[in-house]
Amino acid sequence: MANLLIVYASDYGSTKKAAEAVAAGVATVNGCTATIREAEKATLDDLSAADGLILGSPTHMGSMDWRVKKFIDTVTAAAWMKGIFIGRAGGVFMTGGGYGGSGGGCELTMLAMLNDLAELGALIVPLPNSTPGYAKAGLQWGPYGRSHAEDGKPIGLSDDKLEVFRHHGANIARAAALLKGARIFQTQGG
Amino acid sequence: MANLLIVYASDYGSTKKAAEAVAAGVATVNGCTATIREAEKATLDDLSAADGLILGSPTHMGSMDWRVKKFIDTVTAAAWMKGIFIGRAGGVFMTGGGYGGSGGGCELTMLAMLNDLAELGALIVPLPNSTPGYAKAGLQWGPYGRSHAEDGKPIGLSDDKLEVFRHHGANIARAAALLKGARIFQTQGG
Amino acid sequence: MANLLIVYASDYGSTKKAAEAVAAGVATVNGCTATIREAEKATLDDLSAADGLILGSPTHMGSMDWRVKKFIDTVTAAAWMKGIFIGRAGGVFMTGGGYGGSGGGCELTMLAMLNDLAELGALIVPLPNSTPGYAKAGLQWGPYGRSHAEDGKPIGLSDDKLEVFRHHGANIARAAALLKGARIFQTQGG
Amino acid sequence: MANLLIVYASDYGSTKKAAEAVAAGVATVNGCTATIREAEKATLDDLSAADGLILGSPTHMGSMDWRVKKFIDTVTAAAWMKGIFIGRAGGVFMTGGGYGGSGGGCELTMLAMLNDLAELGALIVPLPNSTPGYAKAGLQWGPYGRSHAEDGKPIGLSDDKLEVFRHHGANIARAAALLKGARIFQTQGG
Repeated sequence: MANLLIVYASDYGSTKKAAEAVAAGVATVNGCTATIREAEKATLDDLSAADGLILGSPTHMGSMDWRVKKFIDTVTAAAWMKGIFIGRAGGVFMTGGGYGGSGGGCELTMLAMLNDLAELGALIVPLPNSTPGYAKAGLQWGPYGRSHAEDGKPIGLSDDKLEVFRHHGANIARAAALLKGARIFQTQGG
Repeated sequence: MANLLIVYASDYGSTKKAAEAVAAGVATVNGCTATIREAEKATLDDLSAADGLILGSPTHMGSMDWRVKKFIDTVTAAAWMKGIFIGRAGGVFMTGGGYGGSGGGCELTMLAMLNDLAELGALIVPLPNSTPGYAKAGLQWGPYGRSHAEDGKPIGLSDDKLEVFRHHGANIARAAALLKGARIFQTQGG
Repeated sequence: MANLLIVYASDYGSTKKAAEAVAAGVATVNGCTATIREAEKATLDDLSAADGLILGSPTHMGSMDWRVKKFIDTVTAAAWMKGIFIGRAGGVFMTGGGYGGSGGGCELTMLAMLNDLAELGALIVPLPNSTPGYAKAGLQWGPYGRSHAEDGKPIGLSDDKLEVFRHHGANIARAAALLKGARIFQTQGG
Repeated sequence: MANLLIVYASDYGSTKKAAEAVAAGVATVNGCTATIREAEKATLDDLSAADGLILGSPTHMGSMDWRVKKFIDTVTAAAWMKGIFIGRAGGVFMTGGGYGGSGGGCELTMLAMLNDLAELGALIVPLPNSTPGYAKAGLQWGPYGRSHAEDGKPIGLSDDKLEVFRHHGANIARAAALLKGARIFQTQGG
């Protein structure tokens, strides 16, 4: 009963693959559908029609891909002005380099995307550490899939890392369906 | 139908006053009750019995009061080990200095408290900018009330700033009530 | 003896005005010069020639303007690959809305820009709270100037807020001059 | 010619081991000495006597150990009131769990400690990715050493991860020595 909009940017195809895994997870939830959009093609109509927004990006110098940021500045800012996304659901996912073993700036990148969701008034769905597949690609703010070798070469997102992305999609879909029709915020019309 | 646990630390009484405003907001929601605990007295039993957790702190050198951190390290970490808070609701609020006009580190402080809620697997309730009273004490992550003058002296939390704290409490209570009985995460028992 | 590169984006002219104040501060330091570039026009040659980088942006939905992010992704990432900025100086500044009284996401925005400087290996120059003018537009990570009224309308950056921007420029210039010729990191050539 | 104060908390000894590696790095720099203090024993006199401050902590629920936070709230806040640390050097390091492969909240934890250093007016020394040993335990904000197995059991900090901690100590020592006697901020006495 909920439609989830997945907006992403991808350089080598890993974040695209991650977005498809998130969408596959959404589709496992009864009555839920996913719309995947490249960041530069997503529109305000896409966002208005969605019950939940899931943002995905590679890490670039410790923050999100500029194309995702452009979507945020131009499309989500318009939604924020109108208050149309208040009380819906949101979440994030990422891919990135493996160099250093610490996520390479993934947490601050996720928080910047989550800041947009908070500004929109969306409830934020985290990723519990008991989610199947968490040990392969989990962080409390959302899935983070290593797509580069230690030497920095892109190696793609291996299939064992996709499981937690699928669960994250399903989790957010269930949250969006639950919130649809509910009225959490006084500012929402009744 | 939901019980909200409000855990806070306070130096001069402003965060305590803010906690009471949040609790008053919770009580406006049909069937919801609030339990207020000083950080050093809150227990795992308090947390286990709660459908939502609301953390409040003053800003100290750009992060939360150490007493709130001690509660997180000792009490919430035990809840995290057992996964008992997954799928419940969470939110944050703060008070702090007015020096500089930019919140003095409130955002990073709120994010550190939200990191605990994300680790616990709680859905995070933001503060929409159309909430009544937002202009006096609002930030997208939760209410932030200035309780010091520009010269750094504590002046308390004026009443006009409390409105947005009350609404934040009511919002989180509604979210906690909605989530109670729902099953967002696969890791939650059925 | 040091050349500072100031890269910014501006919507209504406030961040441009802030950039000019930062540059004026740089020029007060003996032998230091400032080069101001709009984010979309700054090049790798500009960056290579600089002893320090100062990034400025308005806040958009809790993170930096996408044009600054595009500069980071395309220009600074190339500098990072070559390690050419290691051991130089860096800092940030911002402008933004006044709604809510808490900086509206300025801290996380500054941190995303600082993440780029950290990745580049630049020493980060903060803003001490005893800096003249801090009370008007100060945050520990750098100056933050309110350029909108409480109702969201752009009102420009008033002159009383520019003082702290000038000092921040001078501080970073002194740091860049000191670091020039020094060798802090083992990875720097000797 | 510089004295570095290293303040840490440790649960199983890994952060203590990391602190000792940082101190060993400091000692490789001509004329520099390191003082190691457990967070609960560090004093304002220790801080006043130091030319640089290096904070280390394990990750607990996505933020620093409460004992480090208590040091920040009680000792560094007193230094901040007096402005005695303005223009000195600072840096951070961490240890933490390996679960999830993304650092488990290490970035936000480091930023909370860096927020204290920024408030103090210390120049922040990052960790360039070309530092020897970075691939084993590096993050742009400082070293992060995994000290737990994927199943959460503490396994200690293996020796191959210590190299980057030593270099970070040496880097901060060189920065502290350079800054000693320099005058970056107008607010510093001359």
